[in-house]
Amino acid sequence: MPQFDPSRVPASRVQSQFGSNDPRDLALHSFGKSFCDQLRAFRNDFSNAPDLVVHATDEDDIARAFALASKEGAAIVPFGGGTSVTGGVECPRTDRPVISLDLRSIDRVTEVDDMSRVATIGAGALGPVLEAQLARHGLTLRHFPQSFEHSTLGGWIATRAGGHFATLYTHIDDLTQSVRMMTPTGGVLETRKVPASGAGPDPNRFVLGSEGAFGVITRATMRVFRKPRFRSQCSVKFPNFAAGVEATRNIAQSGLYPTNCRLLDEREALINGVTFDGSAVLVLAFESHDHDVREPMERALKLAIREGGLAEPVRHRTENDKDLGAAEQWKSSFLRGPHMQSALISMGVLVDTFEGACTWNRFAHLQESVTQSVMSAIGKLGAKGSLSCRFTHVYPDGPAPYWTFIAVGGNGDLLDQWRAVKTAASDALLECGATITHHHAVGRTHAPWYTRERPTPFGAMLSAVKKAVDPAGIMNPGVLGID
Amino acid sequence: MPQFDPSRVPASRVQSQFGSNDPRDLALHSFGKSFCDQLRAFRNDFSNAPDLVVHATDEDDIARAFALASKEGAAIVPFGGGTSVTGGVECPRTDRPVISLDLRSIDRVTEVDDMSRVATIGAGALGPVLEAQLARHGLTLRHFPQSFEHSTLGGWIATRAGGHFATLYTHIDDLTQSVRMMTPTGGVLETRKVPASGAGPDPNRFVLGSEGAFGVITRATMRVFRKPRFRSQCSVKFPNFAAGVEATRNIAQSGLYPTNCRLLDEREALINGVTFDGSAVLVLAFESHDHDVREPMERALKLAIREGGLAEPVRHRTENDKDLGAAEQWKSSFLRGPHMQSALISMGVLVDTFEGACTWNRFAHLQESVTQSVMSAIGKLGAKGSLSCRFTHVYPDGPAPYWTFIAVGGNGDLLDQWRAVKTAASDALLECGATITHHHAVGRTHAPWYTRERPTPFGAMLSAVKKAVDPAGIMNPGVLGID
Repeated sequence: MPQFDPSRVPASRVQSQFGSNDPRDLALHSFGKSFCDQLRAFRNDFSNAPDLVVHATDEDDIARAFALASKEGAAIVPFGGGTSVTGGVECPRTDRPVISLDLRSIDRVTEVDDMSRVATIGAGALGPVLEAQLARHGLTLRHFPQSFEHSTLGGWIATRAGGHFATLYTHIDDLTQSVRMMTPTGGVLETRKVPASGAGPDPNRFVLGSEGAFGVITRATMRVFRKPRFRSQCSVKFPNFAAGVEATRNIAQSGLYPTNCRLLDEREALINGVTFDGSAVLVLAFESHDHDVREPMERALKLAIREGGLAEPVRHRTENDKDLGAAEQWKSSFLRGPHMQSALISMGVLVDTFEGACTWNRFAHLQESVTQSVMSAIGKLGAKGSLSCRFTHVYPDGPAPYWTFIAVGGNGDLLDQWRAVKTAASDALLECGATITHHHAVGRTHAPWYTRERPTPFGAMLSAVKKAVDPAGIMNPGVLGID
Repeated sequence: MPQFDPSRVPASRVQSQFGSNDPRDLALHSFGKSFCDQLRAFRNDFSNAPDLVVHATDEDDIARAFALASKEGAAIVPFGGGTSVTGGVECPRTDRPVISLDLRSIDRVTEVDDMSRVATIGAGALGPVLEAQLARHGLTLRHFPQSFEHSTLGGWIATRAGGHFATLYTHIDDLTQSVRMMTPTGGVLETRKVPASGAGPDPNRFVLGSEGAFGVITRATMRVFRKPRFRSQCSVKFPNFAAGVEATRNIAQSGLYPTNCRLLDEREALINGVTFDGSAVLVLAFESHDHDVREPMERALKLAIREGGLAEPVRHRTENDKDLGAAEQWKSSFLRGPHMQSALISMGVLVDTFEGACTWNRFAHLQESVTQSVMSAIGKLGAKGSLSCRFTHVYPDGPAPYWTFIAVGGNGDLLDQWRAVKTAASDALLECGATITHHHAVGRTHAPWYTRERPTPFGAMLSAVKKAVDPAGIMNPGVLGID
């Protein structure tokens, strides 16, 4: 990896003792973790660096940042862990200065209500930071996205992150009881701490997925769990992906609600070293803090075997066994992903992922169309490539497929190559009736497809909401296709 | 019941061959089914009658109604089953004429995707109408609110109705995959048919709970189920309500997800004829189309017994047994409610229900405070009264309590008496941190409390959304505390 070259960081246009102009600080806040971001980091390309980084320690600092932005005519980009893969934490450099508002110091668990199983947590808390605090109370949020170690609660809420649970609590949305968001001119939006309500449209849902465009999330009250005491895990091999898909659909529609229900196609299983015989593999797990989960696992296996699945012996664990823990499981299966990507990028390999969600009746066509589009785009680059698919989350009405593509030896700049493949993949998703993203958010990268996916009146509604609380358009301009 | 007196219906101010001015039609669209509504019906008080009723048969009719409203400077009130208990289907008479837009003819199931378990259904379909059509495909929506026979899918979506399932799929929100809503000037908002998405704030959630203020819902794609084949049911008696509450909390937090988990306090159990020995009663049921549910029932009973519960023998049913069916169950336990209310009102008895939701740690205080406030309000009226409580839905973080009050022999007009008790109850709910409604919606009745509950910036957001698609304020003015 090349050395950091501070001379490549554009000169700051905002001087304030309140924030940091240190080139390294600016550089570290100039992109997220997408393929393009990593490539630009390798190239010392900091052209999108902000003008100032404010390290907020409390809500007063955020109010000060609003005032400074207003005075300087600057934009504010909320910055949590900086793991966006869709350009969510960088403003392309224009005449308008940019303040990156780093929230990682607002990371305390301030209230635990064990009786109601909820905890109020600072939005800047990284995954391990909040889990460590919850563990003292015997509780866990159990939200383990691939970025778990490096991303924050506020980032998860702003982007509707997907987590550990393959069913039921798939998005952070489902774990969010209440949010607190500071808006530039509308005041503080704090929703009531109730388990559910039927009073008008759900205000939490205006904040979940808002990607920093309406305000800054400062804390949230989250539904937490007791640590699981019972676990059953099993892998099932299928002669082909289609058989696995059918088994997974039956399990997703069974009402059994497995914690893990990840289906890997033949290539994905091979790449991840799960099987070497060309099988597709379904990784199933059930967990509970309350009761044994052997029976639902047995039933799920019956559904899998009925479609031609070959099940390995089930591993049951109780609290007395050595606790591998979901975080550990996650590490072993996921953590390698981003590091592998970095290593490959440094060798000039094009490697990235994309994902979405569609109904079961559309999946076969989607998979065919995505494969055809992506492989054809890779071919046009003169590259050799591969595409693999897995399901990260499943619903009674459809799966959330997640694809990885790799291309080697293509012609032209890697960024241009990436753009060609990404465009082919995204077009195919939209044309086949899928959503442009199940859990990677819109950011700036997905905005062109999102604005096609989004119903026109809904675009007008989002713009109106933004104007109501941020009339000067200070907050993260450009995300969600709103300016 | 007194005879209908057509001379009491105010003269229509909108003449159009497109709609109906028949006094009976206007009278039938002049209120919902609340205590006040029924009382006014008894009194032949049709002062809030609309000026015209349009019986829409398709979207063209709705577009025509928009045009007519625009030409006449009239408001439009979408009318489904007319079962609102919060003043959602009536505009207080002002200088502005009112068109009631009856949608019950838009009631067809137009598409069934058995593979993805979804069906597209006209918004005007009454519960039994849509269930009959789904039954032909071996499917069921399983949304059985108390108003099931008389309310429509579009009404359920507009008001975030609560249904059959005590856990997981508690609100119609959870069963809604996609909605289609016509707005006065913003065009048609139709959301994508995907099982889930992380692309921006969820557009469905801007329609769910919108109470006709943003537009007219014309159809929706709903998640449907196979008919259950396995059922286990059981009642558990508790020496007192508090013990039942603790057992119910443990079950709600167990991850067992019972289909029915209704806890009746001592008085509620007595009134409903469930027990006569002063016990509180928990009615538990599990159901599945896929698998036997004896094991989760046994575990839930263990949790109940641990808190002092005394369980009756469990009744297990499979598809071979006579199918009582959830609708039948619902009928036996719920249907009597509204009819009993009508009968009592005709005898000059004040009888009504109210509900909300709060966290578990707040429930004991809430129950104490609500009881004190309501009984004190009844006492001040010089009436004798009673208050009973049940849980209709439960969540890991809290219950949705539902109260019934009865007062006899109070001084003054019954409407004034009602207002005094309703105010006492609603104030107590808000002061104790509960929501003003879990599934009865805001309408006009709850608006004063809803605007207190709602975060201020969120009120501005809702107004902005309305202005974006309905700048003239045609749609159901006054609901949700937006004008």
